[in-house]
Amino acid sequence: MLDRCIGTHRVRQIQRAIRHGKITLLCLFMTVVVLRGTIGAGKFGTPEQDFNDLRNHIYASRKHAEPHRVLTESNQSNNSKNDEANSAGDANNYAAFDINKILVDEGEDEKPDPNKPYSLGPKISDWDEQRAKWSSENPGFSNFIGANKPRVLLVTGSSPKPCENPIGDHYLLKSIKNKIDYCRLHGIEIFYNMALLDAEMAGFWAKLPLIRKLLISHPEIEFLWWMDSDAMFTDMAFEVPWERYKDSNFVMHGWNEMVYDQKNWIGLNTGSFLLRNCQWSLDLLDAWSPMGPKGKIRDEAGKVLTRELKNRPVFEADDQSAMVYLLATQRDKWGDKVYLENAYYLHGYWGILVDRYEEMIENYHPGLGDHRWPLVTHFVGCKPCGKFGDYSVERCLKQMDRAFNFGDNQILQIYGFTHKSLASRRVKRVRNETGNPLEAKDELGLLHPAFKAVKVSAS
Amino acid sequence: MLDRCIGTHRVRQIQRAIRHGKITLLCLFMTVVVLRGTIGAGKFGTPEQDFNDLRNHIYASRKHAEPHRVLTESNQSNNSKNDEANSAGDANNYAAFDINKILVDEGEDEKPDPNKPYSLGPKISDWDEQRAKWSSENPGFSNFIGANKPRVLLVTGSSPKPCENPIGDHYLLKSIKNKIDYCRLHGIEIFYNMALLDAEMAGFWAKLPLIRKLLISHPEIEFLWWMDSDAMFTDMAFEVPWERYKDSNFVMHGWNEMVYDQKNWIGLNTGSFLLRNCQWSLDLLDAWSPMGPKGKIRDEAGKVLTRELKNRPVFEADDQSAMVYLLATQRDKWGDKVYLENAYYLHGYWGILVDRYEEMIENYHPGLGDHRWPLVTHFVGCKPCGKFGDYSVERCLKQMDRAFNFGDNQILQIYGFTHKSLASRRVKRVRNETGNPLEAKDELGLLHPAFKAVKVSAS
Repeated sequence: MLDRCIGTHRVRQIQRAIRHGKITLLCLFMTVVVLRGTIGAGKFGTPEQDFNDLRNHIYASRKHAEPHRVLTESNQSNNSKNDEANSAGDANNYAAFDINKILVDEGEDEKPDPNKPYSLGPKISDWDEQRAKWSSENPGFSNFIGANKPRVLLVTGSSPKPCENPIGDHYLLKSIKNKIDYCRLHGIEIFYNMALLDAEMAGFWAKLPLIRKLLISHPEIEFLWWMDSDAMFTDMAFEVPWERYKDSNFVMHGWNEMVYDQKNWIGLNTGSFLLRNCQWSLDLLDAWSPMGPKGKIRDEAGKVLTRELKNRPVFEADDQSAMVYLLATQRDKWGDKVYLENAYYLHGYWGILVDRYEEMIENYHPGLGDHRWPLVTHFVGCKPCGKFGDYSVERCLKQMDRAFNFGDNQILQIYGFTHKSLASRRVKRVRNETGNPLEAKDELGLLHPAFKAVKVSAS
Repeated sequence: MLDRCIGTHRVRQIQRAIRHGKITLLCLFMTVVVLRGTIGAGKFGTPEQDFNDLRNHIYASRKHAEPHRVLTESNQSNNSKNDEANSAGDANNYAAFDINKILVDEGEDEKPDPNKPYSLGPKISDWDEQRAKWSSENPGFSNFIGANKPRVLLVTGSSPKPCENPIGDHYLLKSIKNKIDYCRLHGIEIFYNMALLDAEMAGFWAKLPLIRKLLISHPEIEFLWWMDSDAMFTDMAFEVPWERYKDSNFVMHGWNEMVYDQKNWIGLNTGSFLLRNCQWSLDLLDAWSPMGPKGKIRDEAGKVLTRELKNRPVFEADDQSAMVYLLATQRDKWGDKVYLENAYYLHGYWGILVDRYEEMIENYHPGLGDHRWPLVTHFVGCKPCGKFGDYSVERCLKQMDRAFNFGDNQILQIYGFTHKSLASRRVKRVRNETGNPLEAKDELGLLHPAFKAVKVSAS
C-alpha cells in the first residue's frame, strides 16, 4: 500500500536505507559489545587482594569491587555439559574462556563482634619458657643450624585470587623464584602464604596474624624474615650479619633520627624485616595490631597517623606507619630491642637503585649488600598485581625485569651462563663445559656456600 | 554529469547507498580489527614456551609464533617520554598497558653446526670417582642428611616469558607454592628454572641439559627429582620410600609390561621422576638426548617413535616416548637400574583422580600416596600456560583449583584452618587458638615431621 502513496522507487529507497541502517547498527552494536568485553566495566581496584600494598596515595576514594576479568565474551560452548567430547573446539581455547566461571566466592566473611576489642589470639605470657622446654625435648629441631647461624623462616605471599591485571601473576612467579634461589643458597626455608587467616586484618595487615601463627607453631624457628612479594634479592652472596643482632629482637631497614626524632612515616620499612621468635615479639605484635581492623578503626587510626607523622598522606592506617608511631611514642618500652639497620639494604627502595645496576657491575661485586650491591631491591608503589600503580607501568615492569636478571645472573654464573643483557630473558654461555666440572672456578663461592655447610653426625 | 544520464534521484540513491556501504564496511572492518586484537592471530602454540608439554596430539601442524598479548589497544600516552610526571594517568594503568613494550627479544638463537652431532657436553667417564673425592673433601655437604634420607633436589620450571594466556601464570604460581610446601616438610631443596640453556633442546627436551648441568655442579645431591610445572603434590604426608631404590638409579611411574612388552608410549611418565647422581645417569642422559635436537632430527625421530610405539600419535619426538623406546630396545643395558614404580602415584594422571577427592577425604587419610590418596596429581594435557589445551579449559582450571586446595588443606590443618570447600580459595578456622599452642594435636605429624629432624653436633 505504501508504494501507492509515495511511489515504488521511493519505497525501494526507503527499504534499502532501512536495510543498510540495520546493518550499520548491527556493526556498531557488535563493535561496542566486543570493546566492552575487552576493556572491562571500570577501574575499580580491590586493595584486599594485595597483601603487599604498603601505601596508597589515593585510597580514600577507593571502593571494594569484585574483579572483572573477561578475556573475551564468554563462549556459549563452554556452557555445554559435553565439554570433554568437544576437545578440539573453543572449550579448549584459553583465549575464549571467561575466568568468572571459576571464581568461586562462597558467602561473606564472618562479621566480628563489634563489642569485642580486636585480638590476634589468646594471650601467651610464657612463650620463652614453652619454647625452651620444647627445644630440649626436640633436639632434632635446633634453633641454630650452625655456630652463628639461626634457623630462619622467610615468609611471603600473595592473594589467592588471580591478579587483577594478568601480568601481575608473572611477576609474582619471578619474585618467588628469586626468593627460592637466595634461600636455597643461604639455608633458609620459605613459607608462601595464600590464605587470608583473619578477614578483619586484610591487606597489608594480613601479615600480623600470619606471623604470630607461624611463630607459635614453629618454636624451632629463631628468626622469621617477612618479605613483601614486590621485593627481590639482588645480592645472592650477602649473608645477613646475624651476630650483629644477638641482643635485638626486631630488625628493619630505617634510621633512628627519622623515626624517633622526625616521626617520618618512611623512617623505617616493614616490607622486609627480621623478627625473633620470643615473648617480646608476641607482645610487640599485640601492641602493633590495634590500628589494623578494617573499617572504622583503621580509617580513624589513619587520620591519627597522618596527623602525628611527618609527610604521611591521607589514607587508612597501614602497618608501617603504625610501627613508626608505636616506636616513636613508646621508645622506652620497645626501643632497646629494635635495630634500625642502614648499613646495608635489608630493604632497598628501587627508585634510587635500578638505574645504577650497570655501574654496580662495572665497579663492584656481590656480597656487599649495600648501595654498591643492594641485598634487596623493593618495588614499593609499583603494584603489578593491581590495576593501578603509583608509577608508570612501563618503568616498573622494565625495572623489575632488570632487577630480576641482575639477581638471576648471580645464580646463572654458578653454572656458566648469564642473561644476554639486563633487559633480556635469554641467556648465553660464558664458561665452557669441561670433563672436570668440579674444578670450575666458583668465583662467588655460591656453589657450596660456607654459610650452608652443616655438620651431620653419623646416625 | 552523471545525473544527466541516469537522473538525480537515481544519483542520490547511488550516493546514499555508497555512504551506507562505506559505513557498513567501516563497522565490519573495526569489528574484525578488534576481534583479532582480542583473540589473536590464530591458534599457533609456541611449544618452546612450555617446558612441560609432554604430548601434543595435533602438533604436526603447529608453527612457532610470537606471542600476541594486547590487553587493549595500546594507549597513545604510554609512548610519552614524560610517563613519570603523568603518574595518575593511563601510564600507571596496567589495564591500558601493551605488554609488547617490554617483551625484549634480542636476536636469534645461535645456529648449531649441522655437521656436528648433538652432545649434552664433554664426555665424563669418571663421575663416580670425581664425586667420591669431592665428598670426602667436603664433609659439610653430605649426600645423606639422615640415616635413610638422601639429599634431594627437586627441579622444575617454566618459560621466562609471560604465559600466552594470562591465567597460566597464576596456576604456575599456585603450583610452585604447592611444591614449596611439600619440600619444606620433607627437607628437599628446590631449583626453579626459567632459563633455556640450549636452544636446540627447547620444549619438553629442555630438562635434559638442565638436569645434567645440575648433577655435575652439585655432587652433594644424591637424587634429582624432576617435576613438571603442571604436577601438584596432593599427599603432603607421604615420604618417598628411598630404601626401596637403593639398587636403582632411575625411578619413574610406569608398568614393566606396558614398556617392555607393549612399547606403549604412555607406559611410563617423565613428568615426575627420580634420577640418582652417578655415572650411570650421565650415560643415560647421553643415550636419551639424540632424538631431542629440534628441527629435522626431532621430526624424523617422531616418525620413528610413532611407528615403533603403541598408540603414539603423530608429532615430533618427545622425551617420554624416547625413553620408552630406549628402554624397550636396550633393556639389557639399562633395565636393571630402572625402577618402574606403580605402588604409589609418583605421577598420577589427573583424569582418574580429581573426581574422587571427596571420597578420599571420607574414607582415607594422607600418607598413603596411592590411589587412595595420591602423592602427585599431574594435569597432563591441560597446558594452562598455552593457548589451547587437550581438554576443556573449565574442567582443567576447576580441577587444578580442587587439587591445589586438596593439598593445601593438609598444610592449613597444621595451623587449624581449612578451605571452605575444595572449590573455594577462602579458608575457615577449624581449631581454636589456645594459650598453649605446643599442645595442639598435630594429627598428621606434619608440624615437625620425623623425616625432617637432623642431628646437629655442637660446633
